[in-house]
Amino acid sequence: MAPVLILMGSQSDWPVMQHAAQMLKDLGVEWRAEVVSAHRTPDLLKTTMEQAEQDGVPVVIAGAGGAAHLPGMLAAFTAIPVLGVPVPSKQLKGLDSLLSIVQMPKGVAVGTLAVGPAGAANAGLLAAQIIGSFDANVRQRVHAFREQQREKVMNGPKLELPES
Amino acid sequence: MAPVLILMGSQSDWPVMQHAAQMLKDLGVEWRAEVVSAHRTPDLLKTTMEQAEQDGVPVVIAGAGGAAHLPGMLAAFTAIPVLGVPVPSKQLKGLDSLLSIVQMPKGVAVGTLAVGPAGAANAGLLAAQIIGSFDANVRQRVHAFREQQREKVMNGPKLELPES
Amino acid sequence: MAPVLILMGSQSDWPVMQHAAQMLKDLGVEWRAEVVSAHRTPDLLKTTMEQAEQDGVPVVIAGAGGAAHLPGMLAAFTAIPVLGVPVPSKQLKGLDSLLSIVQMPKGVAVGTLAVGPAGAANAGLLAAQIIGSFDANVRQRVHAFREQQREKVMNGPKLELPES
Amino acid sequence: MAPVLILMGSQSDWPVMQHAAQMLKDLGVEWRAEVVSAHRTPDLLKTTMEQAEQDGVPVVIAGAGGAAHLPGMLAAFTAIPVLGVPVPSKQLKGLDSLLSIVQMPKGVAVGTLAVGPAGAANAGLLAAQIIGSFDANVRQRVHAFREQQREKVMNGPKLELPES
Amino acid sequence: MAPVLILMGSQSDWPVMQHAAQMLKDLGVEWRAEVVSAHRTPDLLKTTMEQAEQDGVPVVIAGAGGAAHLPGMLAAFTAIPVLGVPVPSKQLKGLDSLLSIVQMPKGVAVGTLAVGPAGAANAGLLAAQIIGSFDANVRQRVHAFREQQREKVMNGPKLELPES
Amino acid sequence: MAPVLILMGSQSDWPVMQHAAQMLKDLGVEWRAEVVSAHRTPDLLKTTMEQAEQDGVPVVIAGAGGAAHLPGMLAAFTAIPVLGVPVPSKQLKGLDSLLSIVQMPKGVAVGTLAVGPAGAANAGLLAAQIIGSFDANVRQRVHAFREQQREKVMNGPKLELPES
Amino acid sequence: MAPVLILMGSQSDWPVMQHAAQMLKDLGVEWRAEVVSAHRTPDLLKTTMEQAEQDGVPVVIAGAGGAAHLPGMLAAFTAIPVLGVPVPSKQLKGLDSLLSIVQMPKGVAVGTLAVGPAGAANAGLLAAQIIGSFDANVRQRVHAFREQQREKVMNGPKLELPES
Amino acid sequence: MAPVLILMGSQSDWPVMQHAAQMLKDLGVEWRAEVVSAHRTPDLLKTTMEQAEQDGVPVVIAGAGGAAHLPGMLAAFTAIPVLGVPVPSKQLKGLDSLLSIVQMPKGVAVGTLAVGPAGAANAGLLAAQIIGSFDANVRQRVHAFREQQREKVMNGPKLELPES
Repeated sequence: MAPVLILMGSQSDWPVMQHAAQMLKDLGVEWRAEVVSAHRTPDLLKTTMEQAEQDGVPVVIAGAGGAAHLPGMLAAFTAIPVLGVPVPSKQLKGLDSLLSIVQMPKGVAVGTLAVGPAGAANAGLLAAQIIGSFDANVRQRVHAFREQQREKVMNGPKLELPES
Repeated sequence: MAPVLILMGSQSDWPVMQHAAQMLKDLGVEWRAEVVSAHRTPDLLKTTMEQAEQDGVPVVIAGAGGAAHLPGMLAAFTAIPVLGVPVPSKQLKGLDSLLSIVQMPKGVAVGTLAVGPAGAANAGLLAAQIIGSFDANVRQRVHAFREQQREKVMNGPKLELPES
Repeated sequence: MAPVLILMGSQSDWPVMQHAAQMLKDLGVEWRAEVVSAHRTPDLLKTTMEQAEQDGVPVVIAGAGGAAHLPGMLAAFTAIPVLGVPVPSKQLKGLDSLLSIVQMPKGVAVGTLAVGPAGAANAGLLAAQIIGSFDANVRQRVHAFREQQREKVMNGPKLELPES
Repeated sequence: MAPVLILMGSQSDWPVMQHAAQMLKDLGVEWRAEVVSAHRTPDLLKTTMEQAEQDGVPVVIAGAGGAAHLPGMLAAFTAIPVLGVPVPSKQLKGLDSLLSIVQMPKGVAVGTLAVGPAGAANAGLLAAQIIGSFDANVRQRVHAFREQQREKVMNGPKLELPES
Repeated sequence: MAPVLILMGSQSDWPVMQHAAQMLKDLGVEWRAEVVSAHRTPDLLKTTMEQAEQDGVPVVIAGAGGAAHLPGMLAAFTAIPVLGVPVPSKQLKGLDSLLSIVQMPKGVAVGTLAVGPAGAANAGLLAAQIIGSFDANVRQRVHAFREQQREKVMNGPKLELPES
Repeated sequence: MAPVLILMGSQSDWPVMQHAAQMLKDLGVEWRAEVVSAHRTPDLLKTTMEQAEQDGVPVVIAGAGGAAHLPGMLAAFTAIPVLGVPVPSKQLKGLDSLLSIVQMPKGVAVGTLAVGPAGAANAGLLAAQIIGSFDANVRQRVHAFREQQREKVMNGPKLELPES
Repeated sequence: MAPVLILMGSQSDWPVMQHAAQMLKDLGVEWRAEVVSAHRTPDLLKTTMEQAEQDGVPVVIAGAGGAAHLPGMLAAFTAIPVLGVPVPSKQLKGLDSLLSIVQMPKGVAVGTLAVGPAGAANAGLLAAQIIGSFDANVRQRVHAFREQQREKVMNGPKLELPES
Repeated sequence: MAPVLILMGSQSDWPVMQHAAQMLKDLGVEWRAEVVSAHRTPDLLKTTMEQAEQDGVPVVIAGAGGAAHLPGMLAAFTAIPVLGVPVPSKQLKGLDSLLSIVQMPKGVAVGTLAVGPAGAANAGLLAAQIIGSFDANVRQRVHAFREQQREKVMNGPKLELPES
């Protein structure tokens, strides 16, 4: 199977989007990351998605901010499932990014995650879960990750008021 | 493969959520729909998801409105990918539903679609795309659906001003 | 000079977008309207804009709703100025359409008008003003339209309380 | 009577939630604080609430951020009154936390306080007021706290413009 | 024990607030409802709350819309726990009501419920839960109500697509 | 004539509210500032306003943040015109303060200014304008202030790009 | 004294703005209403305000919707106090009108009332209160109006649940 | 042809608005920048626009923040196309600026760009595109700018996870 493809609208989105890559790496899933801008390299949208289908990419993760058109435009050019990550915008704090990604019209879908790094990490997790629906090893690693999370919660320090 | 599982918080969500079922049916994907309320039947969350994993359900679609906890809580109990549909709320028009579903913390992911029927239909479409990553027949039907959509746009009537 | 090109994401946007056509007609500017969907006919974006540049289209007006990607994607494929009209969405009342159109990143611009019919009419007006910067006849008609508006305000009926 | 139970979705919520503990301490009400994550330890929700009912916990205070499901899910598993504190989220400043906690559907209630430390402190205060409805000593301490607040306002420094 | 006191800013709030009364009645808890306007009868705020404390009212439920000051002002005059219900406003759909009630400063608390009838019903439920913390009969009825809700979900009709 | 009365909910509002005092001072209008909390000293609302009417206070300026009830509650106790200043809140940036102050129901009015220091300064200005409607000297000073503002704009430095 | 001047951006704002006129009439204050559009008759802004100052108009009330520039622009041309009424807009429900009116920069002030008819009525009331600061008869009528409101609340019907 | 005219409400808007000037300079289009305040120098609006029409200014760019009336008021006084830039406001982050500029009523149009520096740069770009519709040299430079942007994306560094 080809690696999960992580695309983003700008080099400057990488500090957010690398959380998707890190999660995939932690879950033992291959990934590849590239910058493809819906607005600055619009002719690459189609060719990138055609190549991805030929390569057998199982999931595309796309992040963008502001009037974030990348996830929806990629989804328009492919039948591969596309997950969208709203990258926080400077002024409107990612509310614009979120609405631009999630409010897709009927017929072209983007599975949207939370604004920012948590959403990027969860895009990696959801991609692994998707692969895990058809790959028992990956599912097993998702279960193990969940168990780790659970234990971290269980073993946290005692909550006490600071001495006054 | 087991049918896609469509869950919703209330019987009253079905007029929205049936758009997911209809899309799956149109794409030749089996589905099953049930009411499971995060708040009124919380004990069913775990058992429903355990059963779904045993059955081999490939994708769960969950819809809820207001303080919409169902998709996130289902995701907490399973490694199956969960897609969330924000059902419009009466007062705040689904902005509450959207934020309650999409803003999940790192570690438990919900792939969120648009508010309302378009989002429900797209949840069905995205579920089919996920299955299509591993099933060439389903992918082929997604491609055919896209082609139909394209042709409907191309063959629309001429746009003219109403006679004054 | 080629007609102003009015594009919209869906046939269902025409009741809003025809206000642009009507305004252009009232100001004596040629127009042509077509449906081009960013999501359902993404391959038409580039060819439509290339043809428009060859034809000498002076301004493109584009309307769309929800995650409204059409105006920005058209702008990505052309140097013709693009004006965007946020079509009201059912649930979020066009706030999503507005943010998806106006919050473009640096490097690709969309001149955005108000949500709904007033914005569509003003897109027609602004297109005429743009042409009017280089065509004294059109500018003259804009001035005349302004004068008519002014007179309508000046000659309105007396404001009185309803008899109780 | 058992201590008021303060629960939160993450260790990182404690700097906010400790304001609830401090207020309870100041009002002479016993408390106990623990991390229980709706998403990472969902199986603990039911058992924690069953134990709380057996112990005779009079009020549960729960804080969480983002898609904040903890207060509502605890409320789903118990008849103990649950007070919810929206912990501020990084991007959307707690508007998501607030709506996720307060907009509960009919049948499962969460008494929601303000976003952030003020809300946490007031959750402690309201818990004490609830206990005070049935315990004259606690009510007396609430009255005394109010009187202190009043005096602090009355005895503030004179308001003057800074010398220019 | 005195009845739960249901107060509202205007006669016109009763269609919303009666859902609180109905819920209390269904749970076998006494209630009394009155109109007290923070703005039109501000001198009644203090006397009403002093009387309520003397009467032994265990919980006050207060509903108001727009710049909804009633719940917070009642809370300022009493140590009885106050629950607030944001009544939907005509233009801003209750977002103003919600923020005006929930965003109380540290030192005076209002336990806020959802906007509209669901919130009113839940205010009744939460009041019963509060009383139930000290009255085993009422708690028992809350548990029974929960069980009924659960069964209604379990026994809903089968979800099927409408015949096309 | 008695000084304009500037009231605020908390000592911590003074850095914002002193802009009202400064503007009044600049316009030669007497002022007096005090802390009166709607929530912590609710019994002072009525007496403060009764005293103000007796003293002949011409305008009251009131600032508060979050669930900002002070301006509206003062207005409920007096026929003196009340101007409201939304003090920025930490989490919601004063949107809560604004809606809590401006969305008053019919029958009790607050003339609301912008969020933050600009709004406070303008409250001082508007108070002076109100007095100026009946005092030619004050009006004259408002005109002079306007002229100064105009000249400052006219005499600004030339706008140039920074050398690159 | 000259009548209070009620201005609005469009004939279509009169159904909202007449509530200001009605309130003034009820309080025995003279008024005059006219349409002056900031955008369609911008040259009238200055002359209208100059005339108003010459006539001795004590207060200007201005209503507008959407990008509501009328109140602020009138205020820019006069030292008469200006009260602004946000007229509800079709799509964004008056949130745009409210922010366009209230968020004035330091140096030009508009005392803003609530969105819609309640705000218009309160603009009339506040204008009367302003006049009442200098006219004991008008103040007396404001007090009487308040008393009427109080009595209407006190004498409302008993609140009862509908028979089931 | 006369230079593009860049106007702004305050000297303090220049750090944002200079991005428009820089873009125009980069695209070889002449520009001139001035401060004209809708509120502090309202009498200059008309004369500035009359002069601009006489000079043959092809496009006006106007930036303002908060209750941003400048772009709309300039548009009211001219038939030259006006582009609006919402300058970020301190408290509401430019949402007020955006709505105050974009939501113009039918009959007076402002082509609105994104909030902040990106919007200012794009206003410069759109102005160049408008001129480019009638000037092949400028259009050529827009195409070249687009090509540069494209190449910058294509030649970005490889995206890699930081070494852990």
